Amino acid sequence: MAYIKLHSADISAAVKVGLIGAGWMGAFHAESIARRIPGAILAAVADPNVGAAEALATSLGIGKVTASADDILADPEIDAVVIASPARFHSSLITQAAAAGKHVFCEKPAGQGLEELDAALVAVEDAGIHFQIGFNRRYAVDFQAAKKDLAVGIVGQPQLLRSLTRDPGDGNIPNAGKVPSWTIFLETLIHDFDTLNWFNEGSEPVEVHAVADALVEPELRDRGFLDTAVVTVRYSNGAIAVAEASFSALYGYDIRGEVFGSKGMVQAGRATETAARRFTAGGMSADTPRLNVELFHQAYTDELADFAAQVRAKRDGTAPPSGPFTLTPGAEDARRALAMALACIESVKQGGPVAVPPLDKAGV
Amino acid sequence: MAYIKLHSADISAAVKVGLIGAGWMGAFHAESIARRIPGAILAAVADPNVGAAEALATSLGIGKVTASADDILADPEIDAVVIASPARFHSSLITQAAAAGKHVFCEKPAGQGLEELDAALVAVEDAGIHFQIGFNRRYAVDFQAAKKDLAVGIVGQPQLLRSLTRDPGDGNIPNAGKVPSWTIFLETLIHDFDTLNWFNEGSEPVEVHAVADALVEPELRDRGFLDTAVVTVRYSNGAIAVAEASFSALYGYDIRGEVFGSKGMVQAGRATETAARRFTAGGMSADTPRLNVELFHQAYTDELADFAAQVRAKRDGTAPPSGPFTLTPGAEDARRALAMALACIESVKQGGPVAVPPLDKAGV
Amino acid sequence: MAYIKLHSADISAAVKVGLIGAGWMGAFHAESIARRIPGAILAAVADPNVGAAEALATSLGIGKVTASADDILADPEIDAVVIASPARFHSSLITQAAAAGKHVFCEKPAGQGLEELDAALVAVEDAGIHFQIGFNRRYAVDFQAAKKDLAVGIVGQPQLLRSLTRDPGDGNIPNAGKVPSWTIFLETLIHDFDTLNWFNEGSEPVEVHAVADALVEPELRDRGFLDTAVVTVRYSNGAIAVAEASFSALYGYDIRGEVFGSKGMVQAGRATETAARRFTAGGMSADTPRLNVELFHQAYTDELADFAAQVRAKRDGTAPPSGPFTLTPGAEDARRALAMALACIESVKQGGPVAVPPLDKAGV
Amino acid sequence: MAYIKLHSADISAAVKVGLIGAGWMGAFHAESIARRIPGAILAAVADPNVGAAEALATSLGIGKVTASADDILADPEIDAVVIASPARFHSSLITQAAAAGKHVFCEKPAGQGLEELDAALVAVEDAGIHFQIGFNRRYAVDFQAAKKDLAVGIVGQPQLLRSLTRDPGDGNIPNAGKVPSWTIFLETLIHDFDTLNWFNEGSEPVEVHAVADALVEPELRDRGFLDTAVVTVRYSNGAIAVAEASFSALYGYDIRGEVFGSKGMVQAGRATETAARRFTAGGMSADTPRLNVELFHQAYTDELADFAAQVRAKRDGTAPPSGPFTLTPGAEDARRALAMALACIESVKQGGPVAVPPLDKAGV
Repeated sequence: MAYIKLHSADISAAVKVGLIGAGWMGAFHAESIARRIPGAILAAVADPNVGAAEALATSLGIGKVTASADDILADPEIDAVVIASPARFHSSLITQAAAAGKHVFCEKPAGQGLEELDAALVAVEDAGIHFQIGFNRRYAVDFQAAKKDLAVGIVGQPQLLRSLTRDPGDGNIPNAGKVPSWTIFLETLIHDFDTLNWFNEGSEPVEVHAVADALVEPELRDRGFLDTAVVTVRYSNGAIAVAEASFSALYGYDIRGEVFGSKGMVQAGRATETAARRFTAGGMSADTPRLNVELFHQAYTDELADFAAQVRAKRDGTAPPSGPFTLTPGAEDARRALAMALACIESVKQGGPVAVPPLDKAGV
Repeated sequence: MAYIKLHSADISAAVKVGLIGAGWMGAFHAESIARRIPGAILAAVADPNVGAAEALATSLGIGKVTASADDILADPEIDAVVIASPARFHSSLITQAAAAGKHVFCEKPAGQGLEELDAALVAVEDAGIHFQIGFNRRYAVDFQAAKKDLAVGIVGQPQLLRSLTRDPGDGNIPNAGKVPSWTIFLETLIHDFDTLNWFNEGSEPVEVHAVADALVEPELRDRGFLDTAVVTVRYSNGAIAVAEASFSALYGYDIRGEVFGSKGMVQAGRATETAARRFTAGGMSADTPRLNVELFHQAYTDELADFAAQVRAKRDGTAPPSGPFTLTPGAEDARRALAMALACIESVKQGGPVAVPPLDKAGV
Repeated sequence: MAYIKLHSADISAAVKVGLIGAGWMGAFHAESIARRIPGAILAAVADPNVGAAEALATSLGIGKVTASADDILADPEIDAVVIASPARFHSSLITQAAAAGKHVFCEKPAGQGLEELDAALVAVEDAGIHFQIGFNRRYAVDFQAAKKDLAVGIVGQPQLLRSLTRDPGDGNIPNAGKVPSWTIFLETLIHDFDTLNWFNEGSEPVEVHAVADALVEPELRDRGFLDTAVVTVRYSNGAIAVAEASFSALYGYDIRGEVFGSKGMVQAGRATETAARRFTAGGMSADTPRLNVELFHQAYTDELADFAAQVRAKRDGTAPPSGPFTLTPGAEDARRALAMALACIESVKQGGPVAVPPLDKAGV
Repeated sequence: MAYIKLHSADISAAVKVGLIGAGWMGAFHAESIARRIPGAILAAVADPNVGAAEALATSLGIGKVTASADDILADPEIDAVVIASPARFHSSLITQAAAAGKHVFCEKPAGQGLEELDAALVAVEDAGIHFQIGFNRRYAVDFQAAKKDLAVGIVGQPQLLRSLTRDPGDGNIPNAGKVPSWTIFLETLIHDFDTLNWFNEGSEPVEVHAVADALVEPELRDRGFLDTAVVTVRYSNGAIAVAEASFSALYGYDIRGEVFGSKGMVQAGRATETAARRFTAGGMSADTPRLNVELFHQAYTDELADFAAQVRAKRDGTAPPSGPFTLTPGAEDARRALAMALACIESVKQGGPVAVPPLDKAGV
């Protein structure tokens, strides 16, 4: 054998990540970290359902499995955590992770109330860790193209914005009995709120008016379950935005954004699965995206790649990666979107517009 | 010469139309009737600005010109009138035309208040004339394709609707000093309200919430002039709709509609002037529609062709032309859309949702 | 009555047109002239099938009907003729019309051989009449948009061109027994040849290579009937073009053009009937154009409107209407495209490339 | 620490890959194997330019580097090789790799003459290794969607096919002096030939007619360098195909495919970089793809992922991965496309159609 001897490889030490929550989203993130993110290593998996954690770890060749997030937070080899547990645990896990000096990537929402979230974000601030929230839509290539146009002034001053989420469905709400009533605001439209805030960067949401109903499964209306909603948002720069969601689009997964401004308009959103088109006796047709991990596969991967890069920079004391426009969603973004979702709930209860509480800079 | 002798031609006697109002829209309609509508004859033109009326008549070879609509209403040779005068005269002209037994095509809005409009529509009803309102969007081929899909059930039960009007502009409001404050609702969004009502046929608008501002020319805000608006509409079938308008789109004339329902979605609206695409070092590009009479040339013609056909049928006592879906906009449509526009004005004043007064069947 | 007295109307005297050939295409043109072309009057209809001529004339209220084109050519009230008879009569009718001093609009092809066509075009030249050929594709809005981009240099020097015709069909060739073997070149691809020549204006076709077969109805192959063809064309400026045709597209009528050059590319061709889109459990879909008079309704009308305007200018001695790019297809265009079609027939017979005979300027 | 003890991970042992050729394409493949392909490990890099090999290996943390492919072929730890050297070495490297029992992924073309390639493929056959060629276009999602429609019969019997390659450029041929004259057929259109063969699976190419020229840089014409080509292909099932290429598209990277058949049509090819659209005073626009590794990033990755999976199956004696349509391009595909490219060269020399030599099954 005549291989040349190389000096020690010049690679930045990879970020060791612990996963908290081995459910559907957690498993997807685990696979991304283990296989698709150069510079990150999935080091451990925690889930109270230890069987799920074991199955996931085994499939990915991960050695450390535990039922308790505490084990991960106490592990000195772990640099950072990905929080993909149920939303009711998010803010306290953020607080604990910050206390343990672990960098945090947390799925949305970062909390269920402003008080608990503000407390968590104070802990983040105090610990000086990198905090990032899973607003993956910012990483979709077409949303980035729109944002870039906004950043360089092509659209001018934003005046009318739109963000839309339609989840794929078949006319029924899966696990309808178990999904909380306000899920459409706290878990779904929170993505749209962040998209609107990001597109209208530099301005604050000041008022929301939410109209919501049970149109997919009207029999759930009496239990207060809402599956369809339209929210009007007024921003401090005068821009008026509409966010819209449905839990059951029979044609698949439909995510769109639009910004109209003083100089033009940009649109994001992919109507079809690929660029292929078929023409038959029935006309022209094309397949539509059916799964969020299909539509946003690249976005889910890129948000974690950004997370790994941001953590490395923070750990190594180097300048954080940056680009031609604001990208990484952090504490203020998490807080701003949650405040809007909570105001929407109040708006539905009151039947009219409700003010969005401003960011309390002192508190956060 | 050896031409064969033909028997008298078997053509239905054409409808003789008198035009009231020789402004921009009236002139366009005049040209359509004179040149593009088989079965209709432009017989006379009336306008207080008699010079404009003369110029128009001369260019089209029309022999009868007058400063007063009364002359047209009194002319026994005239079957029908096209009312294209300023909106404040619409309802009284409808009333007079009905009294004179003339069929009426009236530009929107049919009136400026519900009382005056209801009075006019009672006159229409009493006279038994054909009444039609200029909601031309119903005649655009892509809006018709969407409506047809709705009519045959492809979309299922409507749940979320959207209609949008963006007028071409350059960032300034032309004649800003002369345009009434509420124009965006009474003259612009009234088209969108009709589109929504037509798409959601069989259901009634029950509540609107309008958010509006002066974003194109902020200095007009103090005078109460509104150039940008978003309206949320609740319908009796639970569907939630959004209508949106701006007076200044730098990229041209943008008109779109969308209906999302229990089985799917349809979209109408033409993003580019033609199907041509160019690819250069700067990427892919295409021209956008710039003028309403360019974007809707066919629609403006077809609404008058339908009017002529409907009038002929009424005059001759034959069955009115009909198709696979509801098309011709009439008295109830005019009234329903105006009620929404007026409720929007109230909503802006109150800063919250406002109920839409139901059609008073007795009254109309 | 108080109508104002107008002076004599200032309208250019309309062009009086005689139609020769009341078949399908002739009937469509008749309706256009009678109803859709300001400034033109359909004055007479000739067809050996006098019943067809009578029916058409009656439906349009035309008074003059004859079995013989001679009557029209001898009628001093007729300014111009539209020739829509079978192709084998075209060149002799052009010759006769020119001799009679009538301006000529002739459907394609203008002849079936170069000798007969050259003779006709000499007659046209000698008589000084306006001659126009029915290459309607030049009047389609998207083809015009592409041409305009070419004219202003956006594409640069053309290098690769494509033109495509797919006629709607159901897998069978209608009247297969009656259609001549070479129809695909002489009647169908001749449109594509003109499109290529027009797009590559200033250059001459020098060589064609045609590959053709009976793929739609293979059993017609033995009779020499061809339903599918691909033609490669070399131009004097080096550009290479491909023309392609099929007689049976199950999805409808498909007409496209593309020019790739040193600076970019333009594409023309409309994939769907309207801009409407539907989204269902089966994905995204839209209707496709089904009829040429549907896809090219505007183009068929505009070519005759141009004809009427050109004839008026010639008659009145005024400057012919013109625009930002070459438009009206005339004698040289008719001759160039026919020479290509005839060379294709030779190419199929020989199984290899064949030179295109150059325009004999002296002769034409 | 309370991590649970896991049994040994149940992961298939990864495929160890040696890279031969650390140029631009080799480096891209190296990165894919090292970072994006689960189940594959980049074990060694060979390149006569040992500095390039070292730089690549270091950046990816690979320990084995050599100037000679022999070292890799002799390394018992290596399962498979990726051949990305200049094309003139391909067939002999395939032969050697087969002799050494290494599975082979080879960039196109697999050889430069049929004799040398047939010899290599015999060696592949004898050694029983997995052989795959880098026709990456088969792995692009839109080309797969088209292929799937073809496989299930949506298009019917193929009649007209088109495949097109336009490389991004600025009007100059980079390294024009060094690129061989026939590159456009052997390295570029060979992709299109494979696409056509794959789309028209079950049929053989029987004749090609190539028209080619130096249109991008006409001054290279005298040296025989061709930058623009159109090829017509006749298939044994009667289908007629066109392949087209240019070395300089100013608008970026343009790859398209189209199949028209007895029941319909499918189209593949992505016109724009993302689904985002912008609308400004200049009209509608969008960015176009600029780099092949951008347009085909996913395809380049997936072809290697397929390679790794196929090699694992072969090594482990399990059934090879398969899907709803033919995918992995192998020996016959490499041979068929090369035979077409060579016939095109002959066609250009002769100025007419040339027969494509059939696969000699005995020999291969």
